[in-house]
Amino acid sequence: MFQTVELGQKLSKREFKQQELVLWGNLLTLQQRLRKEGDFPVLIDFAGVRGAGKGTSVNLLNRWMDTRWIVNHAFTRPSDEEADRPTFWRVWRRVPPKGQIAIHMSGRYSRPLLDYVYGKITPTEFTHELDRINNFEKALADDGAMVLKFWMHLSRDLQKKRLKQLENDPLRSWRMLPEDWKHWEMYDKFIEAAERIISYTNTGHAPWEIIEGEDFNYRSIRVGEIFQRNLERHLVTEQIRKKYLSEMREEVQTTLSEITPPNGTGSPVITIMDGLDLSLSLDKKTYKKELAFYKAKLAGLNQKAVQQKISTTLVFEGPDASGKGGAIRQITNALDARFYKVYPFAAPTDIEKAHHYLWRFWNCVPRAGRMTIFDRSWYGRVLVERIEGFAGDDEWRRAFAEINDFEDQLLEHGIVLLKFWMHIDKDEQLRRFKAREDTPHKRWKLCEEDWRNRERWDEYSLAAHEMIQQTSVKNSPWILVENQNKPYGRIKVLKSICGALERVVGD
Amino acid sequence: MFQTVELGQKLSKREFKQQELVLWGNLLTLQQRLRKEGDFPVLIDFAGVRGAGKGTSVNLLNRWMDTRWIVNHAFTRPSDEEADRPTFWRVWRRVPPKGQIAIHMSGRYSRPLLDYVYGKITPTEFTHELDRINNFEKALADDGAMVLKFWMHLSRDLQKKRLKQLENDPLRSWRMLPEDWKHWEMYDKFIEAAERIISYTNTGHAPWEIIEGEDFNYRSIRVGEIFQRNLERHLVTEQIRKKYLSEMREEVQTTLSEITPPNGTGSPVITIMDGLDLSLSLDKKTYKKELAFYKAKLAGLNQKAVQQKISTTLVFEGPDASGKGGAIRQITNALDARFYKVYPFAAPTDIEKAHHYLWRFWNCVPRAGRMTIFDRSWYGRVLVERIEGFAGDDEWRRAFAEINDFEDQLLEHGIVLLKFWMHIDKDEQLRRFKAREDTPHKRWKLCEEDWRNRERWDEYSLAAHEMIQQTSVKNSPWILVENQNKPYGRIKVLKSICGALERVVGD
Repeated sequence: MFQTVELGQKLSKREFKQQELVLWGNLLTLQQRLRKEGDFPVLIDFAGVRGAGKGTSVNLLNRWMDTRWIVNHAFTRPSDEEADRPTFWRVWRRVPPKGQIAIHMSGRYSRPLLDYVYGKITPTEFTHELDRINNFEKALADDGAMVLKFWMHLSRDLQKKRLKQLENDPLRSWRMLPEDWKHWEMYDKFIEAAERIISYTNTGHAPWEIIEGEDFNYRSIRVGEIFQRNLERHLVTEQIRKKYLSEMREEVQTTLSEITPPNGTGSPVITIMDGLDLSLSLDKKTYKKELAFYKAKLAGLNQKAVQQKISTTLVFEGPDASGKGGAIRQITNALDARFYKVYPFAAPTDIEKAHHYLWRFWNCVPRAGRMTIFDRSWYGRVLVERIEGFAGDDEWRRAFAEINDFEDQLLEHGIVLLKFWMHIDKDEQLRRFKAREDTPHKRWKLCEEDWRNRERWDEYSLAAHEMIQQTSVKNSPWILVENQNKPYGRIKVLKSICGALERVVGD
Repeated sequence: MFQTVELGQKLSKREFKQQELVLWGNLLTLQQRLRKEGDFPVLIDFAGVRGAGKGTSVNLLNRWMDTRWIVNHAFTRPSDEEADRPTFWRVWRRVPPKGQIAIHMSGRYSRPLLDYVYGKITPTEFTHELDRINNFEKALADDGAMVLKFWMHLSRDLQKKRLKQLENDPLRSWRMLPEDWKHWEMYDKFIEAAERIISYTNTGHAPWEIIEGEDFNYRSIRVGEIFQRNLERHLVTEQIRKKYLSEMREEVQTTLSEITPPNGTGSPVITIMDGLDLSLSLDKKTYKKELAFYKAKLAGLNQKAVQQKISTTLVFEGPDASGKGGAIRQITNALDARFYKVYPFAAPTDIEKAHHYLWRFWNCVPRAGRMTIFDRSWYGRVLVERIEGFAGDDEWRRAFAEINDFEDQLLEHGIVLLKFWMHIDKDEQLRRFKAREDTPHKRWKLCEEDWRNRERWDEYSLAAHEMIQQTSVKNSPWILVENQNKPYGRIKVLKSICGALERVVGD
């Protein structure tokens, strides 16, 4: 694979200067076009052999463009903040917003590479890590992002020469790392791993470009030109793709509704929620007793979880006025405010809209030992965004796989994940809406949108039914909560959390 | 995941009859549209709990459409022909051509499911198998195929009831399988595996639909309706997608060539082939001696390979008149004709064009112990198809990943894979062309196209350079053969094959 970049290609200083000038102008222009017309983020990755020019290439790209709209990030050993969370947390946090460029050094590929080379993971586990990366890149690319990866190469002999030069240069020798010579000895193993990485993750939507790293002039111009060409192509293709997607979504809408109405004969007439016994209730006395019992129990279990560094993530979804907020309050009442966070999610902000829809949720993944509670969540993608048409047919359909992958990473990291669907029937919703209207201090809770959503009750039910079907897996099932009677529902929630924590932290 | 399809949904006989009539008409119409306008194949998969109606659903789909354009295939235990080859061979062979429908029962998902349930593979290996399936489905979908998967479900109790009924029915009890009760006992394990499968492989381009299998009427209509809706959607979207792709390819071509010419400054001025020492040669005497020696050696090694059931695949690529045919003849001269096959590949036939480009090569994967020699190969995708514009920019770019995945499956199966790039320079090609013109019995070998290709020598070289870069991995590198002097080149080829076989079968 790398024989093709051990050819000794060079550019003279004069050629470099000439071509740099052209690149400089082109890249600045393209960057401005990206900011103005480009409705997508750009993610560049540099990986490769040490000494092959990752750093200098990144510096040049920054020189050739306006650094105000470039974010550079060199990934080093995970910080304690990062080690506490699933591996991709630190990567997702550095995905740039639309119109901007992020340059990652030794990013998502670095850890699997080292783990494999050091024999900490098997070849199959290595492949599994690469699949995670493929999923990540696919999710971004499906959303329109431009993803480009550079592998900077040096032959074994040349790397040796470079390391010697570095070692003997009093001004730069501080840059030598303790493992540099050790890794050089393992050169062949690294190259084998690199071949696996590149051949497995070199997709059309996130290609690898392998660069001969020997000559500064040659490799710099090559990197700049490839970047320029890809950005230029993406500016063109993404515009056409957007047009195509909107045309397609419209066509699907009209054609399908003409021939098979959304709630066609074959659609489930019964949803899973229809099977719930909404008459379940608790009398006041039992409620008070059980509430006190489970809150105390939860407090104790959560203390253990904090000590054992086990994180918990709770997701609440359900119709408007189904009692999500009330259930959450009973949980937080039991807990120490230092150790939990509640995130209420409404329509995304501007900066959130400029990112992949999962980005804002990745940002909320808790540290070890913390509890995070989501009042509405990433499931908005397959509920409100689906129903209101904010996410196209293609987008909410692939969201199931993206959500499963996201949650799988939480679970793999040992996070306890519980998802609650708070349920009431349509009449009860009306009663609660009316009660809100009549109670001055609750009136703010009710808005126009609630009434509009109510009109689409059946569509929301069907979407929720499908969501439960597609995203309930053994280790993170949906828990359906009969919340017509709030006391009953709240106790069910508390009980479920205690049960799940007990299984993990011991009672 | 399956709680949503344990609701006891039913349709009366009357409703069934009514809705069947509508479906029948619609499906026949859609099938005709697929044949006429539909420039894509349809691949349907049925998996799920035994007794949940896979068979009856397939029968109904066949009844509702014209069976002349449907291919049904029930995958059972692999035949010895199938066991000899990589797992996906039998699946690829049953991918339908454009305009047609294939219905697979217990297809690609069946073996990983069973292996996982029986503990023969670890969870990570299971995921790896599912990734292979994802790659397969993505390759088809990227090419335009409609892929749809049905999971037919029954609850544990209902399955028991079904099995009892079957057992006690004298007319149908022969359909009971020895493992049926054993598998029922393992119900929970199967369900857990099914959840993993569905959540991991439920992509936007190859969705799973989970069907409640209890009631014949309900499930049949539901399957029919979902199929109808998906086919209808695909007929619309695929047409728009084709339009978009051609628009995008054209735009990329014009925009890019305006600003950065194909051989822009940063493109490698030197290719890997330029580094070859084409003056290497063998004198006649040495050639004869070595030829006899290596042919004898190859014959012996191949005998061992046949006995040890080790297959070999040789790929020959290179410019016109670079001596691929001659090299192949020296190999086959040494072998027993029962144990090898040579496949010369030119432009695809009509039926090949109606399939994914890899399909015709999958069909040639050898049985255990056989040698297969490809005179030109799947690499046409990134050479001639790329240069001549038969494959769009997006298509040849993603082909590298598809080819790596394909070859990885050959290697994983233990096939010895060698890829030869036969190289000559441009002047030598001209000499050989002229010699062909002047030799009556060689004149047929030369055609107009050869002269046309020659004009694009540099583009072909660059494409070959990139191909070698992207598809040389440790266990299947490209071997560059200096074939300016045919004796030298042929001996290098024979030597390489002997060396590779020796490492595997022992000397």
